Amino acid sequence: MAPEYTLYCFAQSGNAYKAALMLAVTGTNWTPRFVDYFNGETRTPAYRAINVMGEVPVLEHGSRRLAQSGVMLDYLAEKTGKFGASDGDERREILGWLLYDNHKLTSYTATYRFLRTFVTDPNATLLEEFRKRAEVAWRVLNAQLEGRAFVVANRPTIADLSLCGYLFFDDEIGVDWNDYPHVRDWLARIRALPGWAHPYDLMPGHPLPAAKR
Amino acid sequence: MAPEYTLYCFAQSGNAYKAALMLAVTGTNWTPRFVDYFNGETRTPAYRAINVMGEVPVLEHGSRRLAQSGVMLDYLAEKTGKFGASDGDERREILGWLLYDNHKLTSYTATYRFLRTFVTDPNATLLEEFRKRAEVAWRVLNAQLEGRAFVVANRPTIADLSLCGYLFFDDEIGVDWNDYPHVRDWLARIRALPGWAHPYDLMPGHPLPAAKR
Repeated sequence: MAPEYTLYCFAQSGNAYKAALMLAVTGTNWTPRFVDYFNGETRTPAYRAINVMGEVPVLEHGSRRLAQSGVMLDYLAEKTGKFGASDGDERREILGWLLYDNHKLTSYTATYRFLRTFVTDPNATLLEEFRKRAEVAWRVLNAQLEGRAFVVANRPTIADLSLCGYLFFDDEIGVDWNDYPHVRDWLARIRALPGWAHPYDLMPGHPLPAAKR
Repeated sequence: MAPEYTLYCFAQSGNAYKAALMLAVTGTNWTPRFVDYFNGETRTPAYRAINVMGEVPVLEHGSRRLAQSGVMLDYLAEKTGKFGASDGDERREILGWLLYDNHKLTSYTATYRFLRTFVTDPNATLLEEFRKRAEVAWRVLNAQLEGRAFVVANRPTIADLSLCGYLFFDDEIGVDWNDYPHVRDWLARIRALPGWAHPYDLMPGHPLPAAKR
């Protein structure tokens, strides 16, 4: 059967991973479409025709093309009936954590990990600043998870799938989740979901060619 | 009549302004509750009892307390029936722009303006980095607004009220919106909404005491 969904993605993108993981753990029929980000594909006119801002990921479903991982998660929760909210209060709590993730947790973590792992000779001031900001967000998440199995409910929701997007790259971030034990235990619970796979196993493009490492 | 909503806010917070502006342009009965951020109120145990992360704004409605400006906008659109989505596709577009605003536009603009305006002797590398990132976001917004009256629809939605949160502080940011003409014209359309007021007129705490300037 032809895949129902196509995800424009590459293995190193934690934002793409959020959607890929949702597709995987919901047992959805999907296929990845590799985007050669590190060789500049997102700056080509052909890719700009797919997404005007040159963003990854893009999720294709029939004639519909969605940008923004949070929108994809919301859409897939609606379509699959899984990992969504059970009522209005929960829906708002999920939205709040999607926003927090985009504003702070993923934003600072992804920028820091990019500088640390993919930039040659990164600026020390920027490294320090983004690390500091990421650590604050990890502490907030750790505090939220104290005494909770998942971020919003006793079951996983799209809030969890968003927040964990970059956190399985712990070696590239240079973090030991034992220092954030509630995050560590929560990541183990996510890892135990049927269908879970590491971003480098779920999406194409890993490892990078030697010249890019 | 007692105000229906209480918004914990202070004049310099563009994130609080997003909710305050929504309350104002929907003609909702609300009252501001001043938070003395610049004298450390958000770090006090009393404030942490209101919001565990010490965030501003907080919106109080009956026994409900909401955090995150995007959640408040979504909630107020539902309660007032104004500035919300007309269908599922529009809802997803609005969500996408709320996420973009939190991830990039407000995030970088607010950090840059804070460093530039409220920090004594800010680090030049950080100033330059956040300015550069903010400018990319302003260009994205300017491109989106070319040929459009508002960001998502032909009428204003909560996406507009979110994205404009920090943009009326143009002197403190050090930007001339004539350099981003579609943003300039869109800000004029927002300014023309009945009930519109500048953040410094809508919320308490301006000007700062001299020692804080």
